[in-house]
Amino acid sequence: MYDLIIIGSSSAGMSAALYAARAGADFMVIAEDESGETGRAGFVENYLGFPGISGFDLAIKFKEHLSSYQPKMVFQKVVSLKKDNGNFLIKTDKEEFISKSVIVATGSVAQRIYVKGEKEFFNKGISYCETCDGPLFRDKKVAVVGGGNSAIKAALSLADICKEVTILSITSELRGEKIMTDKLKNKKNIKMIFETKILEFKGDKMLKNILYQDLKTSKENSLEIDGAFIYVGFLPNTSFIDKSLGILNEKGEIVIDKTGKTNIPGLFAAGNVADFPYKQISIAVGSGTLACLAALDYLKQK
Amino acid sequence: MYDLIIIGSSSAGMSAALYAARAGADFMVIAEDESGETGRAGFVENYLGFPGISGFDLAIKFKEHLSSYQPKMVFQKVVSLKKDNGNFLIKTDKEEFISKSVIVATGSVAQRIYVKGEKEFFNKGISYCETCDGPLFRDKKVAVVGGGNSAIKAALSLADICKEVTILSITSELRGEKIMTDKLKNKKNIKMIFETKILEFKGDKMLKNILYQDLKTSKENSLEIDGAFIYVGFLPNTSFIDKSLGILNEKGEIVIDKTGKTNIPGLFAAGNVADFPYKQISIAVGSGTLACLAALDYLKQK
Repeated sequence: MYDLIIIGSSSAGMSAALYAARAGADFMVIAEDESGETGRAGFVENYLGFPGISGFDLAIKFKEHLSSYQPKMVFQKVVSLKKDNGNFLIKTDKEEFISKSVIVATGSVAQRIYVKGEKEFFNKGISYCETCDGPLFRDKKVAVVGGGNSAIKAALSLADICKEVTILSITSELRGEKIMTDKLKNKKNIKMIFETKILEFKGDKMLKNILYQDLKTSKENSLEIDGAFIYVGFLPNTSFIDKSLGILNEKGEIVIDKTGKTNIPGLFAAGNVADFPYKQISIAVGSGTLACLAALDYLKQK
Repeated sequence: MYDLIIIGSSSAGMSAALYAARAGADFMVIAEDESGETGRAGFVENYLGFPGISGFDLAIKFKEHLSSYQPKMVFQKVVSLKKDNGNFLIKTDKEEFISKSVIVATGSVAQRIYVKGEKEFFNKGISYCETCDGPLFRDKKVAVVGGGNSAIKAALSLADICKEVTILSITSELRGEKIMTDKLKNKKNIKMIFETKILEFKGDKMLKNILYQDLKTSKENSLEIDGAFIYVGFLPNTSFIDKSLGILNEKGEIVIDKTGKTNIPGLFAAGNVADFPYKQISIAVGSGTLACLAALDYLKQK
């Protein structure tokens, strides 16, 4: 039985764990890996204090900061979270844990687009993580599917590695920060095709073509590529949460108040898994702090 | 007429300005100085990514990060903020500005304790900022009035400089993080006196004594000291805000929702000036990001 269990090891979980450790709390962290979403974040220029750093390196900085406090961490996959006589029961793929309070900071995963061939060519040309898989496509032709900041960031990084990058966006213009869209203009090996709908990924052993529809003319086109990076949004990692708790919104995000409280006393959330309309590392770090301080207050009053 | 004016240059204001600059927004920053509260924050160990750094140096890192975007900043004191035909009118001690949206990130200032001699001996032995004035008391005897984390941090830093540090707390135990209270035990030149009420600061040209009452015995005692650092809480910097806007709570903090919105469309707040129950640099940085993104969305929809 713990006072506090933090689920997740990305920005929000790390910030919560830092405050829990400094408070001398009886707590542990359960995470699937050591760095979570931050480690897959591409190049980060908007976490105040770090003018430019890869997500991978920033996650290492976070881990180093926390490790000096030697928090208890286990690397397991959480499969369910339930209420249990005023406490919380957390089942992982290996063990069960009971805790008086819980902070869910499990982040989000890339949204799939659910078209033919997407599953078949996953890891055979299709990727959801430029940071992880970009280097596999050195001097090759790739597509980026999406039109928001994540898609633009991925395209910019890929343009430094790949021969040619084509952005395929369903919208009529990009939706990223102006500084990001401006940068695109300086990259001569980036092409953009707007108002397109992806129809199918084709190939034999490996991905070779993307079939897409031009939404202005309704014509079908084919783009020959070696790789496709899909950046169309993110889904919160909340599938392990008992729906009867009633803390999820229609997007599957955890509904919280300003301090990270859910409507279940003792249950808190922070970072990309929570219902913030914006998903940013700084927001995750701040909300991790808030959720931890709110959890510590809850424990004091209990 | 600007699209967005950010008032304040500490963590929250800097984070908001960073996002505004990257978005290519038509904005400016009005601030009294270049670093605000962060610069006066003592030694910071809980902003994720920086295991240990002085508030002064962290503020420089923040400033350097932002300066690469060359945002427009003016150093003036804001004296009033009012609504003006759907826009906002900001008067400073020198100029007037009109903006479609405003983010208030003016932070907070040290709370006074309102006892005899406090005003008289301010800057003559009494200080509210250990970072600023600690070095003036090298090898001298000082008191720290307060019992929370800020008081403990101040006492720990002063113990490295001063001959003797006495913490005078009205409560029966310290209210700081455990890691901070543990550190106190290792400092042999720190004394603690609990359940005390400060009655008066005495001296001639400079502070010489603190008169205090022992709340257990009701006896009056006098402590001979060269300096006194008062850390009993903070007051939000909201005196310039038109009360008729109805955005302040009973503590004078700005009431916001999870994204930094006040109940006035176009008016946002972030950081220590907002009604977060906890005041931390990470929370300020995250809430600055949220308020900026919410303001940019407001401008798009306007």
